[in-house]
Amino acid sequence: MDTTLKIIGHISTQYTDRSQCPKQAEGHGVKAELTIEPEYQDALLGIKEGHKLVLLTWLHASDRSVLQCHPRGEKERPLTGVFYTRSPDRPNPIGLHEVKVVAIPEPGRLVVDPMEVLDGTPLVDIKKVMG
Amino acid sequence: MDTTLKIIGHISTQYTDRSQCPKQAEGHGVKAELTIEPEYQDALLGIKEGHKLVLLTWLHASDRSVLQCHPRGEKERPLTGVFYTRSPDRPNPIGLHEVKVVAIPEPGRLVVDPMEVLDGTPLVDIKKVMG
Repeated sequence: MDTTLKIIGHISTQYTDRSQCPKQAEGHGVKAELTIEPEYQDALLGIKEGHKLVLLTWLHASDRSVLQCHPRGEKERPLTGVFYTRSPDRPNPIGLHEVKVVAIPEPGRLVVDPMEVLDGTPLVDIKKVMG
Repeated sequence: MDTTLKIIGHISTQYTDRSQCPKQAEGHGVKAELTIEPEYQDALLGIKEGHKLVLLTWLHASDRSVLQCHPRGEKERPLTGVFYTRSPDRPNPIGLHEVKVVAIPEPGRLVVDPMEVLDGTPLVDIKKVMG
């Protein structure tokens, strides 16, 4: 079974260092631009301005050997398994982001809000929000 | 950049054929048991009965070449890019499931509800639900 992820696109943000990225759920994300690889652009059919999407990213600057951490990097919080956190450091560093499409400047490019990942983060999936 | 996913565990369900699996959002999922590989069990620290989790699965029976489909397999719905659906057939067949932990019969085994995947589906990540 081949479990190698395909990179379907990349994300441009203003964050160039992990220390700049806001923690999820703090509500401090910014607008970001997705550029989808030409071979995957047919899979965008139907996506329009105003739609809500779930993005799955590959958090490439993560440490995949980490199994436990202090949530949100706060040392006074008890050591917790990464599977009960949203830490980017985890065996499979897949980021999960619910965003709104705020503009589609041209086919294969989407401006979304909010995002909190590093500039250049690979995108691995896009899904419709349920419900 | 190595984007190969590590299999952190497997899911046991009553579904042995894709045609039996309910569509997501239909509310027909069933209880399922997760078995976490010994090397990743430290990452479960803090997870308790009653907690809500997001599970990421590797939908191993999917067709990764599909870019467009009729949503929910209903031919009267217009052809739509898979990135605006929840179809399991997509370039990176990662399933996204919000579940509740209903029992922890022993360390490394979790009973969750609801799930709608095939028996034997690999698990690739577990996250805390936000908010």
